[in-house]
Amino acid sequence: MAIEMHDLAGADASLRFSPYCWRIRLALAHKGLAVQTIPWLFTEKDVLTFSGQDRVPVIRDGDRVVYDSWSIAEYLDDTYPDRPGLFGGATGRAHARFINAWADSVVLAAIARLIVRDVLDIVDPKDRGYFRASREARFGMTLEAVQEGRDARVAEFRALLTPARLVLGKQRWLGGDAPTYADYIMFGTLQWPRCASRFEVLAVDDPVAEWRERMLDLFDGMGRWAPRAATA
Amino acid sequence: MAIEMHDLAGADASLRFSPYCWRIRLALAHKGLAVQTIPWLFTEKDVLTFSGQDRVPVIRDGDRVVYDSWSIAEYLDDTYPDRPGLFGGATGRAHARFINAWADSVVLAAIARLIVRDVLDIVDPKDRGYFRASREARFGMTLEAVQEGRDARVAEFRALLTPARLVLGKQRWLGGDAPTYADYIMFGTLQWPRCASRFEVLAVDDPVAEWRERMLDLFDGMGRWAPRAATA
Repeated sequence: MAIEMHDLAGADASLRFSPYCWRIRLALAHKGLAVQTIPWLFTEKDVLTFSGQDRVPVIRDGDRVVYDSWSIAEYLDDTYPDRPGLFGGATGRAHARFINAWADSVVLAAIARLIVRDVLDIVDPKDRGYFRASREARFGMTLEAVQEGRDARVAEFRALLTPARLVLGKQRWLGGDAPTYADYIMFGTLQWPRCASRFEVLAVDDPVAEWRERMLDLFDGMGRWAPRAATA
Repeated sequence: MAIEMHDLAGADASLRFSPYCWRIRLALAHKGLAVQTIPWLFTEKDVLTFSGQDRVPVIRDGDRVVYDSWSIAEYLDDTYPDRPGLFGGATGRAHARFINAWADSVVLAAIARLIVRDVLDIVDPKDRGYFRASREARFGMTLEAVQEGRDARVAEFRALLTPARLVLGKQRWLGGDAPTYADYIMFGTLQWPRCASRFEVLAVDDPVAEWRERMLDLFDGMGRWAPRAATA
């Protein structure tokens, strides 16, 4: 039976834009595990009661329920050790945790300041009030104010990616000769703005953008052909 | 025969403060390899001619000469595979490269802005003119101006360490259950201000500071008992 995954969806239920869910979709593909995604809205918190918390991704694998993208990646690698590894062993996993922490605390926070108002345009009408209120409380200002001036600020964002850029100048993937969960962390992070906004966060000639092109081709172009925001 | 390493020294030749050299001193200890360090001054560039470049660390291992801390770590692990591994395999190494790039591009750059004027007080008199001129050219201002206001700015520096802090809230070492080269990267980075300045860059209750205490105890307290700047 396929693993089930609750996956954040937009007004168009085929539009999936959670950076954490994207990480797991690629991790599942890497492991060769079939998945059935269940579109989920921000305001459907009661739907996740079975998991004991209220955020996605959540997976159900037979009678096992796991939430939190990092925990799910660990679960998949531990539960299916005969399938391709996500981390290259215990030390590779320990080091990947740093990349996960960096992506979450540095990169996602910075992307939000570039696209959070755009996200409002693609969420389900039922989610709009919740999304605006919860994010405006977090930032202490309107979504419009958060996003303002992004054309001038995007250079600062790109500078934050320097560590990834330096690595990708030396090796083809963050994981070395082949993609690992480290690549899926970073890719999922960047798939969020790519799917939820038309604002391009990367410069075309950035080695990170070139790596993203390679990532978009993985698993039959899973990332490339995913629906994207139609708003301007 | 012990490996020889040219190691940046201060006016007191026992004072060693290069973050890159510290990474390698711990890597050598981890591998159980004896080292003879050769104190080196910034202005002794001609002494390094044999290496084909002019920066430390440089190691000479029999007839092999290797420079650049990352390349030296790779060399040691590849050349002495029967000794304890620094990276936990190829993927662990690929992921550690990210931590190396982050430490170099984010952390070292930020530490310089807190202590670069203090360094002037501990370098050899022969290096003072070179140190001031080269660093002032890099920053485009006097060393005094670079360092000014650090008491107010240190909080920003500590915020930059968030990824390491998050990881160390989950695991004892950046390498997981035991230290790896990832830990030596970060430790060497922080040993620079610890040895070259009396300014404390970490808060006492920071998990990063607690981890540093564990690091200072490794290898018979190699880091803890190293000479430190005496200037106020």
